[in-house]
Amino acid sequence: MDKVYLYDTTLRDGSQGEGISYSVMDKVRITEELNRFGVHFIEGGWPGSNPKDMTYFKKMSAKKLKNSSIVAFGSTRKANTTAIKDANISALLESKAKVAAIFGKTWDLHVKDVLRTSLDENLYMIKDSVSYLVSKKIKVFYDAEHFFDAYKANKSYAIKTILAAQDSGAEMIVLCDTNGGTIASELLKIINEIKPLVKVGLGIHCHNDSGLAVANSIAAVEAGCSMVQGTVNGYGERCGNADLVAIIANLKLKLNIDCISDKNLKDLTYLSHFVAEVSNMRIKDDQPFTGNSAFAHKGGVHINAIMKNPVSYEHIDPSLVGNRRRILVSELAGKTGILLRAKDLDLDLTKNDPKTKKILSLIQNLENKGFHYEAAEASFELLVRKALKKCKKFFDLEGFRVVIEKKTNKKISSEAIIKLKVKGVKEHTAAEGDGPVNALDNALRKALREFYPTLSKMHLSDFKVRVLDEKSGTAAKVRVLIQSQDEKDTWSTIGVSENIIEASWQALIDSVEYKLLKDNPK
Amino acid sequence: MDKVYLYDTTLRDGSQGEGISYSVMDKVRITEELNRFGVHFIEGGWPGSNPKDMTYFKKMSAKKLKNSSIVAFGSTRKANTTAIKDANISALLESKAKVAAIFGKTWDLHVKDVLRTSLDENLYMIKDSVSYLVSKKIKVFYDAEHFFDAYKANKSYAIKTILAAQDSGAEMIVLCDTNGGTIASELLKIINEIKPLVKVGLGIHCHNDSGLAVANSIAAVEAGCSMVQGTVNGYGERCGNADLVAIIANLKLKLNIDCISDKNLKDLTYLSHFVAEVSNMRIKDDQPFTGNSAFAHKGGVHINAIMKNPVSYEHIDPSLVGNRRRILVSELAGKTGILLRAKDLDLDLTKNDPKTKKILSLIQNLENKGFHYEAAEASFELLVRKALKKCKKFFDLEGFRVVIEKKTNKKISSEAIIKLKVKGVKEHTAAEGDGPVNALDNALRKALREFYPTLSKMHLSDFKVRVLDEKSGTAAKVRVLIQSQDEKDTWSTIGVSENIIEASWQALIDSVEYKLLKDNPK
Repeated sequence: MDKVYLYDTTLRDGSQGEGISYSVMDKVRITEELNRFGVHFIEGGWPGSNPKDMTYFKKMSAKKLKNSSIVAFGSTRKANTTAIKDANISALLESKAKVAAIFGKTWDLHVKDVLRTSLDENLYMIKDSVSYLVSKKIKVFYDAEHFFDAYKANKSYAIKTILAAQDSGAEMIVLCDTNGGTIASELLKIINEIKPLVKVGLGIHCHNDSGLAVANSIAAVEAGCSMVQGTVNGYGERCGNADLVAIIANLKLKLNIDCISDKNLKDLTYLSHFVAEVSNMRIKDDQPFTGNSAFAHKGGVHINAIMKNPVSYEHIDPSLVGNRRRILVSELAGKTGILLRAKDLDLDLTKNDPKTKKILSLIQNLENKGFHYEAAEASFELLVRKALKKCKKFFDLEGFRVVIEKKTNKKISSEAIIKLKVKGVKEHTAAEGDGPVNALDNALRKALREFYPTLSKMHLSDFKVRVLDEKSGTAAKVRVLIQSQDEKDTWSTIGVSENIIEASWQALIDSVEYKLLKDNPK
Repeated sequence: MDKVYLYDTTLRDGSQGEGISYSVMDKVRITEELNRFGVHFIEGGWPGSNPKDMTYFKKMSAKKLKNSSIVAFGSTRKANTTAIKDANISALLESKAKVAAIFGKTWDLHVKDVLRTSLDENLYMIKDSVSYLVSKKIKVFYDAEHFFDAYKANKSYAIKTILAAQDSGAEMIVLCDTNGGTIASELLKIINEIKPLVKVGLGIHCHNDSGLAVANSIAAVEAGCSMVQGTVNGYGERCGNADLVAIIANLKLKLNIDCISDKNLKDLTYLSHFVAEVSNMRIKDDQPFTGNSAFAHKGGVHINAIMKNPVSYEHIDPSLVGNRRRILVSELAGKTGILLRAKDLDLDLTKNDPKTKKILSLIQNLENKGFHYEAAEASFELLVRKALKKCKKFFDLEGFRVVIEKKTNKKISSEAIIKLKVKGVKEHTAAEGDGPVNALDNALRKALREFYPTLSKMHLSDFKVRVLDEKSGTAAKVRVLIQSQDEKDTWSTIGVSENIIEASWQALIDSVEYKLLKDNPK
């Protein structure tokens, strides 16, 4: 297989993932990134199913995309009517998309139990729907829903349905493992059996219910499928769709298939993180190729070997997909990890330096208390700099008080009063906020801003709270991770305490100090 | 392949996962559950690498396990010495484990660049280490590190290393895809080539760097490997190890391989969640077979079909692995989802009831504000009951105030003052706490406890905070999810506000109300 078409359905099948809901603007932004990245087909939505998707298609019909074609999704017409009169089919035309993907029933059980019509009528529905769209100059991809289950249940009927679509003018027959239950050996066997019958292109569409979606997609391409469907990061209903990110990397780097340029492949990590952001999902740390831990080394043996030759524990060069190597700091990494991280920070530590030992035991001590420097590299840097006395003091806190008040059905109010000393000047000020952390943040910035004006350029971009000892209920120790960013960088800081405000304060202070240190290195 | 041995390395390779750190007690608890579940081999740790693991082995040597054998992990001896004098090998004997898994180098690049010794010396190291352990009556599994990369680089040398282990008495040769970079077709080809050369059992050990670990493990079993290694939930360095949970389910349910009893398979979801808890990792919602979303249905078309016949969109019956079906409430599910959920709650709603419409629009409105009822089923139930006026009022809040104070380096203090009316009585009380939410929680319970004594039986088991609009920094709207439990149930509630205390309060109040409703249904 020389050329494989990439077909993204993040905006349609991906949006069915639990916790995902896209606005029209979200869809447009994701479309633009997929186009820039070079995906060949973007399934934008189901215009017949909701007004939001129709608005998206209207917006997109006015735009010209350089690399991608927009595809509208729909189903074959309803039973006992005609395609011309079918609202769903009309919506496909109204969407102005030049390509339509329509799914039809392949599995006799579905025809009987779900559609509740006859096997013959289902074949008419496929023929009528495909040929009507083709007559309107729409390119049609036919999604054979539940193809593999259907084939196992009633082989001859399953074949009839795809031949009905092919004979009616579909340009591509997409074999769907809709329930995600097929294992690779079976999937391969079935593809090899039906391949001689299909004259048009074959596509593959897998779900991940058995944890096999990426492997099945690749096996299908090796068996001759020329289109592979998936979603960015594998978003989708239940256990998700096949992860297009891992598929692309595997096709390019393992099978040398020309589906994207080498240059664009370097944007894979960016694309994966961008879509996660817009989808309001945290990227999985262990996500193949693009996760934060994908090239992170923790075991001492591995770290030592990586220093000698990276290929020893890395299956690809992380920069090929725009990711990077990370050396984790933890009890398992030991001194080597600390040394490597310090080297990254241009801090000169040597293996037998007593300071190195001191820092190692300091970290172990804090990690025992629940700190976790793997996820908070800015706090780690501050810790090391402070231990080496290579960190300026920008201000001294004398104290703060936060008051939160609620009356019956009124909105809650939060006020923070803060006292600190900065450059010899005592500052005593107060601020309100949309919550106690925000009030503290506001009061702190108010006290510092005339001394350090660049603080106005940074903002908090995420925070996470994790209960460490859940048995203690609301009295449990919590770990707060704050991510901050300014126009150039993103950094993470940590705080741990039984008190969520104290933990937030620690992370907040680290975040501000890191910014000040970054802007005032000398 | 009739019989396949399950080999768990959560406690050794899994503990290298980012964010994971086990205490000795954690290891013992996980061992006991793996034994109860029926895994055949449990790799407990690397006694030569740290004192914690040695303590674990000493503890375990005193216990009798019904189903599992404990395995100690180590490496072949160092170069230019003898196995008798090697500290690592001695630690294996000292561990008292009856089975040892030792890894050795297969890849010539590793011998040269990492070990920095000769190819011949590496063969002596393998022979010496294996035969010495065998002479001490230890059963030896030989892990051929980087087997597939090694085979591609220098086939004849790779074969020499595994034959050295076999000839020295190893009972099992474990083929490791250490870097996780091998695709299934290549892995199969290599296994088929070497199978005729190996007279002892073959094992497979995969990593997930290409997203293929589960598929590769299953393909290897189909090709004749009789031992499959992995970790619970796929924990492990970088992108993790092969997920033993998905492997077990696939072997049993797709290939009918007798690796665990049908009865124990029903504990798979419990095992997966238990290990996640002890590992302090949130279970991935979309984890195959055992995730919370693994059998969750959101799309309207799917929900309608599932109601007609579950097999239409479920690849297996969720109860086979101890999981359950969930119908999600969201804009995509529409009325059918609401009706199904209401039916689960024994609330009679019909499709065309104006109340159903009202509840639907209420939910859509709240979801637009950031509420997310998919993840907070108890809050959803309260919402529906309140809309139907089928919810008692247990108390009326008049107001609260929380004061948080910090002085220089002193510990922070939190105090909550609360005023409410319960059963006609005015309660005005105050409590301290380990943070503002805990102080509020304490004050609320203090005010309610003499009226509702069962409240003492519930506690908060987790809370999550999610920034919804990250661009607003610390003023962003946050979503708080609280999970609570008592001796019988676990339930989740939600709150959304710009103020983290307000959001926590909403979720806290819902949690308490849900508990009161549960205990006082009439």
